Amino acid sequence: MSFRLTILGSSSAIPSVNRNPTSQLLNVNERCYLIDCGEGTQVQLRKYELNFQRINHIFISHLHGDHYFGLIGLISSMHLLGRNKDLHIHAHKELEAIIEIQLQAANTDLNYPLFFHPLPENDELIIHEDDNIKVSNIILDHTIKCSGFLFEEKKFSRKIVRSKVEEYNIPHDKLISLQNGSDWINSTGEVIKNKSLTTMNTKPKRYAFCTDTRYSDLLIEKFKEIDLLYYETTFKEDMLDRARQTGHSTTFQAASLAKSSKAKNLLIGHYSKRYKDTSELLIETKKYFKNTFLSKSGMVLDFKQF
Amino acid sequence: MSFRLTILGSSSAIPSVNRNPTSQLLNVNERCYLIDCGEGTQVQLRKYELNFQRINHIFISHLHGDHYFGLIGLISSMHLLGRNKDLHIHAHKELEAIIEIQLQAANTDLNYPLFFHPLPENDELIIHEDDNIKVSNIILDHTIKCSGFLFEEKKFSRKIVRSKVEEYNIPHDKLISLQNGSDWINSTGEVIKNKSLTTMNTKPKRYAFCTDTRYSDLLIEKFKEIDLLYYETTFKEDMLDRARQTGHSTTFQAASLAKSSKAKNLLIGHYSKRYKDTSELLIETKKYFKNTFLSKSGMVLDFKQF
Repeated sequence: MSFRLTILGSSSAIPSVNRNPTSQLLNVNERCYLIDCGEGTQVQLRKYELNFQRINHIFISHLHGDHYFGLIGLISSMHLLGRNKDLHIHAHKELEAIIEIQLQAANTDLNYPLFFHPLPENDELIIHEDDNIKVSNIILDHTIKCSGFLFEEKKFSRKIVRSKVEEYNIPHDKLISLQNGSDWINSTGEVIKNKSLTTMNTKPKRYAFCTDTRYSDLLIEKFKEIDLLYYETTFKEDMLDRARQTGHSTTFQAASLAKSSKAKNLLIGHYSKRYKDTSELLIETKKYFKNTFLSKSGMVLDFKQF
Repeated sequence: MSFRLTILGSSSAIPSVNRNPTSQLLNVNERCYLIDCGEGTQVQLRKYELNFQRINHIFISHLHGDHYFGLIGLISSMHLLGRNKDLHIHAHKELEAIIEIQLQAANTDLNYPLFFHPLPENDELIIHEDDNIKVSNIILDHTIKCSGFLFEEKKFSRKIVRSKVEEYNIPHDKLISLQNGSDWINSTGEVIKNKSLTTMNTKPKRYAFCTDTRYSDLLIEKFKEIDLLYYETTFKEDMLDRARQTGHSTTFQAASLAKSSKAKNLLIGHYSKRYKDTSELLIETKKYFKNTFLSKSGMVLDFKQF
């Protein structure tokens, strides 16, 4: 049961030789969800040997280039490499026309079905749900409309004890009700208590991706006790005014949000190019919130460790 | 007086870790002209320490992604880094809307004037001319409309002999007529023959960029005695049918074109990803045309050597 995040890029605005713009791959039980897709993401996926045809859902936070300029290239490469299964894009509605106009100019009729799901602009809703995960949007405060994403693993509250199920000869199609906590009544009318058939499951993992945004107290409630919060630290604390003006946050704001929401761990990123050594940002954030990680390309965070 | 070409990428279709899609930078007398701009081009420019703010003209052959998906990122980075001088884009007309829709979605009002020059679709014309260079389009035969480009250095036929000009006290504003071959009549009416004031200049350099296209005999005339012809070899000779179907050319076709047009040198590129070792393509092309080079990222061709 995997729940792990690979960082493909974590810089802001301008890509350079060693700093890729925002993109992350979330693997939940071996299904792959791509979050943002700055220029060069498809090459990063190859570099870290992550098969991009396994991605079925792509979530784009907003339409600044460092978060999506790599998407059309990825869509095209999936096509050229013979993909035929569905691809779902979750993004602000303007992206649909941007994709279409480029496919049209190339006279490309995709081999696979592409489904576009516009993000809600005024509501926070579940925007995707499968038997694996539930994804909600979070409305952020940037210079253009921007969305965070909350990924929550779906898990039954109870875990089957295989030997007990065999002992009582419980049919396969009844297991879900046991996983949900029901007792079992066998053919003689005997009630077998759920507790003797199952054990408590581990808590479902939760991950929030939150960039680009100004700090707001309203965010605290959304990240309550989250396993990992990815939050932007475009600037150090001395650039608070600049952060506000440009729709971004600082190290202290990230730490303060993580602390107030009792997040278990904080992952920072989206560094301004002015910071040649991004560890400065880590040092400053850690002063206020100890469990902070510095995102960098190729880093893998396995939620088992949290 | 520089005339040199830097290869930024020379692969076809799908970018990978070590193979960048098409882009080239032509430096003519220290002015920079960018030809095609596949995804990742801005990072390639940084990698080879080529200041992209020096580019004033960008020529895009056609609207398949491996030739232009890096353009919007480059335009955005030029803006974010404070450019204020003009940028000229020469491409098929559909690109203008593709750029505009993306700037609009980001709510970006560029700091600098961006001029869009649609390529002629039915005629071959001079599409750009300055005191340095003359650029013409070449209509190619691909699966969508596609254009090659012919770059011709502008040069006076005669070169001033500085010491002679000083000896005869010839004013600065009269030098152009000498460079064009005129004699000089001094204040006493004496005719000083041009030959004693100037020497023969070297021939203007000529470079043709020619991808993606099916082979056609009609191309021969256009590349007559050209210094360097860049021509695609997407496929080896055994894939002739596939080349024809997909609007591409083979090694033998590239060599044959170079030979028939008496090109001085041939540069091949736009390799299909099926060729792990691109030197196979070089070996095959060289069988028919000896002066062949294999383009690869970072390679610099100085036309002085031709």
